[in-house]
Amino acid sequence: MINHNLSEKIEYKRSLEAVNLLIKQSLLQTDEIFSEIMQHLTQESGKNLRAMLLLVTSTDEDGFVSQNAVVAAAALEILHLATLVHDDIIDEAQTRRGQLSVQSRFGKKQAVICGDYLFCKCFSMVSEMSAEYPDKLKEFSSAMTKICLGELRQFKHNADTDLSVRNYLKIIAGKTSALFSLAMYSGAVLSGDSEKDARFMGRIGFKMGMIFQILDDCADYEGNFEVSKKSVKHDLAEDVITLPLIYAFFKNPALKARVQDQQLSIPEINDIITEVKNLGGVSMALDLAEKYYIKTKKMIESLPDQKKRLEISKILEKIWKGAH
Amino acid sequence: MINHNLSEKIEYKRSLEAVNLLIKQSLLQTDEIFSEIMQHLTQESGKNLRAMLLLVTSTDEDGFVSQNAVVAAAALEILHLATLVHDDIIDEAQTRRGQLSVQSRFGKKQAVICGDYLFCKCFSMVSEMSAEYPDKLKEFSSAMTKICLGELRQFKHNADTDLSVRNYLKIIAGKTSALFSLAMYSGAVLSGDSEKDARFMGRIGFKMGMIFQILDDCADYEGNFEVSKKSVKHDLAEDVITLPLIYAFFKNPALKARVQDQQLSIPEINDIITEVKNLGGVSMALDLAEKYYIKTKKMIESLPDQKKRLEISKILEKIWKGAH
Repeated sequence: MINHNLSEKIEYKRSLEAVNLLIKQSLLQTDEIFSEIMQHLTQESGKNLRAMLLLVTSTDEDGFVSQNAVVAAAALEILHLATLVHDDIIDEAQTRRGQLSVQSRFGKKQAVICGDYLFCKCFSMVSEMSAEYPDKLKEFSSAMTKICLGELRQFKHNADTDLSVRNYLKIIAGKTSALFSLAMYSGAVLSGDSEKDARFMGRIGFKMGMIFQILDDCADYEGNFEVSKKSVKHDLAEDVITLPLIYAFFKNPALKARVQDQQLSIPEINDIITEVKNLGGVSMALDLAEKYYIKTKKMIESLPDQKKRLEISKILEKIWKGAH
Repeated sequence: MINHNLSEKIEYKRSLEAVNLLIKQSLLQTDEIFSEIMQHLTQESGKNLRAMLLLVTSTDEDGFVSQNAVVAAAALEILHLATLVHDDIIDEAQTRRGQLSVQSRFGKKQAVICGDYLFCKCFSMVSEMSAEYPDKLKEFSSAMTKICLGELRQFKHNADTDLSVRNYLKIIAGKTSALFSLAMYSGAVLSGDSEKDARFMGRIGFKMGMIFQILDDCADYEGNFEVSKKSVKHDLAEDVITLPLIYAFFKNPALKARVQDQQLSIPEINDIITEVKNLGGVSMALDLAEKYYIKTKKMIESLPDQKKRLEISKILEKIWKGAH
């Protein structure tokens, strides 16, 4: 049971649980017309990385987080969920978090409205806090705008075998790092940090996002990819060009023509994956992620609060080790 | 050229022009990746009813409106535009405001991102003002939520020939009146009205929205409907059940079966339109609109400020006479 007394603080260790409960409550307390979709959406939760980053950054010296931080973390995860629901329309993704995506279960049209509704939920939670942080609200809208720009940039570069590393980094900076950055910036603001310190935290979050996304993109070229009856869940099948592939193109430009083929078959995808690995595309991408990792580690080490340093490092290690 | 000095007020008569200029500027000042869509969207503007209602309500006794009101009115029109862009995905509409819809010109996927981006723009404009009106922001998110509920309700009742008048009114209350209400409420808040007076203005706005939407739905059963090469622009062709049709079903339930036919041909649509008119569906719907009109007129007459009374009445007459 969440204590809605906003002055009440809760232990950092129990705060993620509180966030998840609040997300469920917020989504399920809805007009009955939305209840089926919301039931579906609350079946599975994600990794909650964004919430975790906000919570850890907002923790006070006694190891407690405020109810405001719990609300902000829930709002951030709901915003993330909204982008996923709309993303799945754009990518025509069949599955999400191990179950059917909203677009495949309820159709594209309901998925559009559902995503909009989740944006509203996030906006509504954030606006309840706005009286206390009137000049920080624009950070939220600015991050949301960056996400849209990242999405559109990715969409426009779909199947673009000439995508540059620079433009790839621009895409992931928008679609992933903007929200990671907002998470840590917001946490710092909520913990009472100065604007300068909060911006520094935001930059740590940004880099964590870059690491997370590059590793996530590498993962597609490492393990076995998911094949279900209906779809192949792999960036190549969705014409999304990512870093390992871009690096592989450097080594063997002839690979471009094979990727440009419409509707790659499963053996073709497997062949390309093997070639990308053999050409060193994955290891080069991992090298870039490692550069971000080393920089981020240094930034974290420079933080004055020892406990926070430790806890943020743990999340960094989780991101770093979890994905490869 | 808009004067961005927020303390500067401008004449009510020139304020709509300022709003339109600000909308264009806001949409065109964007990352180049969005420029083509934004160019397209700023080619044609709508009726600006929401902006007009906000501006007129915010006017001070000397006939001036604040720059904040101009920004809020622009934000409201951009929010409206966002809902139209997503609506057109849901309705698969080919045209909007006399030109191709975003979804038909740029595809559904870009339309999803474009609508999201417009939401962000609105949110960003509103959040810049939030420091001054910290506790009013939730009205914005609440109206946005109502719009989503209205959209989903309409979608779920698509082709539902048993749609009740009550549920029809719930749909249009969400999809149209929520924003009209927000416009007049916000205008009143910006003009310094008390919360109670602002709520009263909001209720006037709500009723204006109901009148507007009922008349708009009647218009589909009055004139000639638009037929282009690609599509028939009529509620019947989109399976949207509206008031004139619901009333006609009361008189002749056998009509339901004809409407339920998949893919009505143009002669079939024409036949149904004629029958709805002959059964008195349109005139009954107009009667209900008139009831709203009479109530709204009375509410406007009770307003203390004579000039505002006059100007708001003018917009009511415009809505009342414009649409039928």
